[in-house]
Amino acid sequence: MVSAPAETAVLALLLAEGPLSRVELARRTGLSSTAVTKAARPLIDDGYLYELPPERTAPGAGRPVNPLAVAPDREFFVGVKVSPDHLFGAVCDLRAGIRVTASLPLTDCRPDTVTAVFTELIDELLGCEPEFRDRTRHVGVAVSGDVDRDSGLVRHSGLLGWSDVPLAGLLTDATGLAVTVENDVRALTVAEHWFGEGIGTGYFALVTIGAGIGSALVVNGELLRGAYGVSGEVGHICVDQAGPRCRCGAHGCVEALASTDAILRVVREATGRTELTFEQVVELARDGEPAAREAFARAGRAIGVGIATLVNLVGPERVVVSGEGLAAYDLFGRHIKDAFAAHAFGAASRCPLLLRPLPWEEWSRGAAAVAIQALFPQYAATAATGSG
Amino acid sequence: MVSAPAETAVLALLLAEGPLSRVELARRTGLSSTAVTKAARPLIDDGYLYELPPERTAPGAGRPVNPLAVAPDREFFVGVKVSPDHLFGAVCDLRAGIRVTASLPLTDCRPDTVTAVFTELIDELLGCEPEFRDRTRHVGVAVSGDVDRDSGLVRHSGLLGWSDVPLAGLLTDATGLAVTVENDVRALTVAEHWFGEGIGTGYFALVTIGAGIGSALVVNGELLRGAYGVSGEVGHICVDQAGPRCRCGAHGCVEALASTDAILRVVREATGRTELTFEQVVELARDGEPAAREAFARAGRAIGVGIATLVNLVGPERVVVSGEGLAAYDLFGRHIKDAFAAHAFGAASRCPLLLRPLPWEEWSRGAAAVAIQALFPQYAATAATGSG
Ligand SMILES: [Zn+2]
Ligand SMILES: [Zn+2]
Repeated sequence: MVSAPAETAVLALLLAEGPLSRVELARRTGLSSTAVTKAARPLIDDGYLYELPPERTAPGAGRPVNPLAVAPDREFFVGVKVSPDHLFGAVCDLRAGIRVTASLPLTDCRPDTVTAVFTELIDELLGCEPEFRDRTRHVGVAVSGDVDRDSGLVRHSGLLGWSDVPLAGLLTDATGLAVTVENDVRALTVAEHWFGEGIGTGYFALVTIGAGIGSALVVNGELLRGAYGVSGEVGHICVDQAGPRCRCGAHGCVEALASTDAILRVVREATGRTELTFEQVVELARDGEPAAREAFARAGRAIGVGIATLVNLVGPERVVVSGEGLAAYDLFGRHIKDAFAAHAFGAASRCPLLLRPLPWEEWSRGAAAVAIQALFPQYAATAATGSG
Repeated sequence: MVSAPAETAVLALLLAEGPLSRVELARRTGLSSTAVTKAARPLIDDGYLYELPPERTAPGAGRPVNPLAVAPDREFFVGVKVSPDHLFGAVCDLRAGIRVTASLPLTDCRPDTVTAVFTELIDELLGCEPEFRDRTRHVGVAVSGDVDRDSGLVRHSGLLGWSDVPLAGLLTDATGLAVTVENDVRALTVAEHWFGEGIGTGYFALVTIGAGIGSALVVNGELLRGAYGVSGEVGHICVDQAGPRCRCGAHGCVEALASTDAILRVVREATGRTELTFEQVVELARDGEPAAREAFARAGRAIGVGIATLVNLVGPERVVVSGEGLAAYDLFGRHIKDAFAAHAFGAASRCPLLLRPLPWEEWSRGAAAVAIQALFPQYAATAATGSG
């Protein structure tokens, strides 16, 4: 683990931004040049950093500088996304580059089953290259639901039917690796903040649309957690007090208007065709069927109002919109953007919405990013080094 | 200015919590005992801290300890709230205790007029006690609108009709004092976070209700600012897309349903009595007039949904509800609490809503709290020491 604050600052900046000179590192971290050189030394000795060949930045600009760069192969990280029927895994390098992926089916999602299949998946992934097995110590695990990252406890996951499952402890005991468990949308947001569209932003948000509507927020560079573990619940913003009842019990939540199920239900009702699948509803809308088009329009407005609310309250510099719902973005994208523009307050309307497709590998990469973050002491979960 | 991080941590903790032993200070700040003693020394020498008489914490508990305490009279701070027709001022001590208050009318709110009356008000306030004049260096100024605290610029204030007024610079030039300008709701939130209901909370929110509906949020101990200067706009959360048009241009904002004006307008329309004042509407509602009661119910539901949204997204540990609107709290308080309970997501429903009356002195105290905060380097505005 990287322990000194200066080492942390130097490594984090190089991870996010690629090679930088010591002068640039000093300017960006606020450290003195001496402090940068001192912080870089153990990281070079440990193989995390190396010096690039000297480059002369400008004619007559003085002695040549050797930019510092991260050695991405110095250490590998496994990320695993737990879904109700599969575990999706990836081995990533230090800069969150995906090196290999694999998945295994789950016959059920009892914690014992998940632990056994997880162990098998880790073995398969690390077996792909000898260097993976030699240089992997950390695994990140992404789970939908209420997760206490510090203790490694999944407090509640409706999708998996779990309550108070000490997942990090179980997986560490089974594999001997350090395991950090995180909510899946938060994990994805960490990946995007450190290694994607969020690089360098102090305020950042990611919103996922699809079967559920979720988000996670970064404020002053840190993931927002909430005093009661609740934050970023953009899916449960009320946009219509007279709207349909949501699975959370309230009325008119964004999710109750804009999830895949909500769209499907309203089109089935409007057309009387109870056998329709979501794919068929998408086809109907693309063919111009009015009820299907209006269902997507309503969903888009709800999502746009929800994102505007998030932006008005928290003020991200940019918002990444992701999730399997992007596949139908042609049907509601315009409504999302229009409703966002109509409801963003003042200068907040300048906040760009960026689209980001989300194949399952991205979920695994999100989990791996959480494992990379655990290299840094301020992000290390107390349970990460195992309970056994 | 307190410069070393350890000094900052020690003084901030003592300001917020009152006397603590060095052992307790070490435990709470995470510093070593030696570091606490070293940090306290210059603060004692400068008169900011003093040692209380020794107390023996428990029989046989070892040698007696001298708790450290803030000397509240060591330095005084002026807070001034700018309203369209008055300047409201207060002298506060180091722990934000109000020592004297005064106000002066404004004939208009041109920046020149405000500067002249401000100078007069400062003179009056500091003239109350010789020690005020000797020991006051910092003034905090609270203004409604979009304020850039770092540069001391009021970017926009609809209420005052200002755009890009370099207020901190003008007031520093006129008085020779260091001036920090802050948005009024954010200033109030600073006061409440450091010296009120928010003490010790990492996540905290304050919501004001009345002529406007505003809020400010604290995340990880820091005031949330937003990448574009916009944050905490709870008044412009859309709770009814088909609702009345708001002054911001959008439809169905909380403010368009729940501000004093919105309530007044809807009752005038419903009763046909265009001459009604807000006070008369309050009386009507208390007498059971149905349209007036329903207007407050609708306003309360909008505020409750807005607060639930804020809590679901940001996750404060507690929310303080304040503002002149509290005077009619008997009429919509129940609706606020019911709508909050119905829309708070999961564990977020445990977040308490606390009521806090808001006489104008509290606005001035909020401004003074911003001046106290400016003692600490991380909060000092770059323009605070004057532009001249
Ligand atoms: Zn809901
Ligand atoms: Zn509005």
